[in-house]
Amino acid sequence: MGKRIVITGVPGVGKTTVVNGALEQLKGEGIEYRSLNFGTFMFEVAEAEGMVKDRDGMRKLDRDQQKRLQKAAAQKMAQIPGNVIIDTHCTVKTPKGFLAGLPEWVLRELQPDMVVLVETDEDQILSRRLNDPTRTRDMEGSREIAFHQEFNRSMAAAYAMVSGCTISVVKNQDHLLEQAVARMADVLR
Amino acid sequence: MGKRIVITGVPGVGKTTVVNGALEQLKGEGIEYRSLNFGTFMFEVAEAEGMVKDRDGMRKLDRDQQKRLQKAAAQKMAQIPGNVIIDTHCTVKTPKGFLAGLPEWVLRELQPDMVVLVETDEDQILSRRLNDPTRTRDMEGSREIAFHQEFNRSMAAAYAMVSGCTISVVKNQDHLLEQAVARMADVLR
Amino acid sequence: MGKRIVITGVPGVGKTTVVNGALEQLKGEGIEYRSLNFGTFMFEVAEAEGMVKDRDGMRKLDRDQQKRLQKAAAQKMAQIPGNVIIDTHCTVKTPKGFLAGLPEWVLRELQPDMVVLVETDEDQILSRRLNDPTRTRDMEGSREIAFHQEFNRSMAAAYAMVSGCTISVVKNQDHLLEQAVARMADVLR
Repeated sequence: MGKRIVITGVPGVGKTTVVNGALEQLKGEGIEYRSLNFGTFMFEVAEAEGMVKDRDGMRKLDRDQQKRLQKAAAQKMAQIPGNVIIDTHCTVKTPKGFLAGLPEWVLRELQPDMVVLVETDEDQILSRRLNDPTRTRDMEGSREIAFHQEFNRSMAAAYAMVSGCTISVVKNQDHLLEQAVARMADVLR
Repeated sequence: MGKRIVITGVPGVGKTTVVNGALEQLKGEGIEYRSLNFGTFMFEVAEAEGMVKDRDGMRKLDRDQQKRLQKAAAQKMAQIPGNVIIDTHCTVKTPKGFLAGLPEWVLRELQPDMVVLVETDEDQILSRRLNDPTRTRDMEGSREIAFHQEFNRSMAAAYAMVSGCTISVVKNQDHLLEQAVARMADVLR
Repeated sequence: MGKRIVITGVPGVGKTTVVNGALEQLKGEGIEYRSLNFGTFMFEVAEAEGMVKDRDGMRKLDRDQQKRLQKAAAQKMAQIPGNVIIDTHCTVKTPKGFLAGLPEWVLRELQPDMVVLVETDEDQILSRRLNDPTRTRDMEGSREIAFHQEFNRSMAAAYAMVSGCTISVVKNQDHLLEQAVARMADVLR
């Protein structure tokens, strides 16, 4: 049985860069991970069941349908052998507020070994977002980013309580990417 | 089936003013909410079962009795049709410490769609309390208020994890009541 | 049936000093507590079942074995009559990250009345650790200590949600030990 590691971080924190760096390093040591995306798994289940035709349809599902899909996606992921990384959000920001990215019914199916929080100072995240020309969403201020990261930590505590998973924090600070990659590799090793 | 929205905030944050403003606005749009108070529902169940004679008696119930009443009150609330607002505390401050306002057995019955945290800076809350001549309780300092609000957020994360509800923060800052009312109306709309 | 009180605090916060002071004071009032250590109970169960020969063996157990032992230890503790204090960690810091000290399966067996967080400012903890010649572990900086204490609070909220326990904070500040002991005695009284 492999490891199941959930990796989370607010937009702009540089999660993908850190993970890819760590996976490359681990590959050289003979440690392999398969990368999964939680949203993609949910969509595939929904499509296979004829619930949606495209990804846009996912937003129109009601709460019970969403819950059933989340559970089914988690079950499917839990059956994949070998080490897996699951890319998702610790909390999901919606126009009305925050949702748990891994609610209880997902955690009970998925049984992750670890939830990683990739973090850095809110000002650094703000500046990375401002410098990203592909970003089109409404801008948050640094206080909102700070709140989102703090709320992610609180949520992670609840995940650890109910699932027994380890909560790891990987800092991805400006000019210290190598350090972030090394820490992520440590955590995944 | 209507929406079930739990609204919380520490004493002095101005929760009632914000909610009433939003409800009035929504009424003009044809959206109605019925307002319920969690404590009142618990008392009515306790009285109907002959467990207490008056509200003072509620404090003398033991832990198992309290738990049973909370569950019964939540079941009763969940059966009310249409949109409801439930007025309660995110965490309850007692002389010995904090209790969860919505423990797991309440959440499983109530299944709220949303938990709203009405918040503002601790200094503003302190000053509002100092200016409230009807307030007779022991005064907390601003650090204690800050702690209470932070602890409410952590608790809200646990609620979202177990129930799948959305957590909304509505800021009620000095001189910006209109903004708070507009945001609350958005959240309830 | 007595009270079951879990007492937690990061290393260096002075938990033992505060608890012992409070227990002495309460003894004079005829209130007795038996002190239990969660780790010791787990070890005794593991030894009795032939799973380990010494305490070092505890670290080599896999996740399912650990979980089973935690549950068994919690069951054993819950059967002890009279008032008990349970000494454990709110979150356990491991090289890979944080674990819940009281995961759900422990809380459901133990059903604690209260979880106490003994806390003080991170700088005071750092300085107490620096002045402790018996301490040999890797030093944490004050930001890491602050994070650990915040994470403990978030975790405590999750504990309160699932178990209905009270969360008490007892501050153990420099030069104010008497105040900490008096507050701890209040909480345990």
